[in-house]
Amino acid sequence: MTALEGGGPFRFVLRVRYADTDQMGTAHHGAYLRWFEAGRTEMLRSLGMSYREVEERGIRLPVVEARCRYGRPARYDDLLAIETTLARLGRASMRFEYCVRREPDGELLAQGMTEHCFLGPAGKPVRPPAFLAGMLERAPRP
Amino acid sequence: MTALEGGGPFRFVLRVRYADTDQMGTAHHGAYLRWFEAGRTEMLRSLGMSYREVEERGIRLPVVEARCRYGRPARYDDLLAIETTLARLGRASMRFEYCVRREPDGELLAQGMTEHCFLGPAGKPVRPPAFLAGMLERAPRP
Amino acid sequence: MTALEGGGPFRFVLRVRYADTDQMGTAHHGAYLRWFEAGRTEMLRSLGMSYREVEERGIRLPVVEARCRYGRPARYDDLLAIETTLARLGRASMRFEYCVRREPDGELLAQGMTEHCFLGPAGKPVRPPAFLAGMLERAPRP
Amino acid sequence: MTALEGGGPFRFVLRVRYADTDQMGTAHHGAYLRWFEAGRTEMLRSLGMSYREVEERGIRLPVVEARCRYGRPARYDDLLAIETTLARLGRASMRFEYCVRREPDGELLAQGMTEHCFLGPAGKPVRPPAFLAGMLERAPRP
Repeated sequence: MTALEGGGPFRFVLRVRYADTDQMGTAHHGAYLRWFEAGRTEMLRSLGMSYREVEERGIRLPVVEARCRYGRPARYDDLLAIETTLARLGRASMRFEYCVRREPDGELLAQGMTEHCFLGPAGKPVRPPAFLAGMLERAPRP
Repeated sequence: MTALEGGGPFRFVLRVRYADTDQMGTAHHGAYLRWFEAGRTEMLRSLGMSYREVEERGIRLPVVEARCRYGRPARYDDLLAIETTLARLGRASMRFEYCVRREPDGELLAQGMTEHCFLGPAGKPVRPPAFLAGMLERAPRP
Repeated sequence: MTALEGGGPFRFVLRVRYADTDQMGTAHHGAYLRWFEAGRTEMLRSLGMSYREVEERGIRLPVVEARCRYGRPARYDDLLAIETTLARLGRASMRFEYCVRREPDGELLAQGMTEHCFLGPAGKPVRPPAFLAGMLERAPRP
Repeated sequence: MTALEGGGPFRFVLRVRYADTDQMGTAHHGAYLRWFEAGRTEMLRSLGMSYREVEERGIRLPVVEARCRYGRPARYDDLLAIETTLARLGRASMRFEYCVRREPDGELLAQGMTEHCFLGPAGKPVRPPAFLAGMLERAPRP
């Protein structure tokens, strides 16, 4: 796990598992959404609070949109760097962007985004509370 | 979906999806646990109450043990019949057994079981309440 | 499974499984990509050829882009209708679009798309061969 | 990743992801099979050869049986240590055993096993070739 100081995206490295592959012999396109999830989760942790704690404080951040463009395939056992940035922080929603790179050569395999709203304890949309907004303001930007 | 009257297991037919395969070109061994889940869920429904309703009445049936023996591989796009029976109904737990057969030839591909305990609203072990026990007593037996 | 004659999307109905849910108590956002896969697979079958046969003829249709907008949550045990149309058929790629509706009330839960290229036996981009193009020209359009 | 010298199981640490949870609020029982896969994969790597290389040499090790006993639940964002040992190395098959412990307290959450056969390039059962047998003989034992 690497958070480059002085800029750059948050990097989290993971490995393509056999269960992630399909009979094309490469990673199934659905696996990338789980990798994005790991990327933003670890980015939040690096900012000082786990998403588990965010939920324990009554805030949930459900995905309202997800996109991925697949360039070159990820293969079984590849090491992948998931690079995460906070592309937009609004009053009602925010957007993370992701690059998936193969390690160690850094080849760009895929790019994607997820958009999230802020839900309060009653399951209603809320503005991001101060503890969350303050943390997110320190997030790596694209 | 077929519940054979006069005996025999409960049969539920599903298809192997691309996401279920791995780079061996066959279904990943983890997929069978989801198929077992579909099998017992539809068996409960055929007995008169969905597992959703069981949970809404405060009872959960977590898996405490799962086993699967894999014989012949399931392949992409195969139709599979999941045959489910209630092998044991105890005071603290119960056991479902499963056969996975390829359709339409009926070739046996895999066999497995799941064992479940009964948890009450407080998350504590309970005996199966009457509404559940009565339903389960009508379940197909091996 | 329903293919409405005289127009309308191809409809395929499936059920939200326990394994599809997450601790928010609703379907995980990643499940929708598998549901889209089921939708387009069954649409191809309704047009006369399974995707398995397409692959056996040497053509693969990998996903090059996927998107989903999540409106209302899908819940455990919901029946969902996946409505699939072929939104674009080009020389190098094609696009499927999807609506996920809750049955039986038809409430729209999510919308998405997948874009696919055509790969030949050597893994190189090809134009869609006649057998495939002819079939796709009969696909439901948005 | 830790391989304790002088004995003890091979330990690989991973985190429970949101996608691994279900609406019971804990990890879905199917996730453990993927964790076992990660455990034995990393154990093989620690012995000097990745499973990718094993497959590239023409040997596949499909799962012929899998079992898991679930004791205490794994929760979202828990760190888990997957402890893997080679419980049996035969001429036709081998068995890995696994303990899943919560970190950092070491609480035992689940135990399981997978049994694998050896398939040669033609997809037929073979005895483990020397390169594999030699490696496996150095594997941690229960």
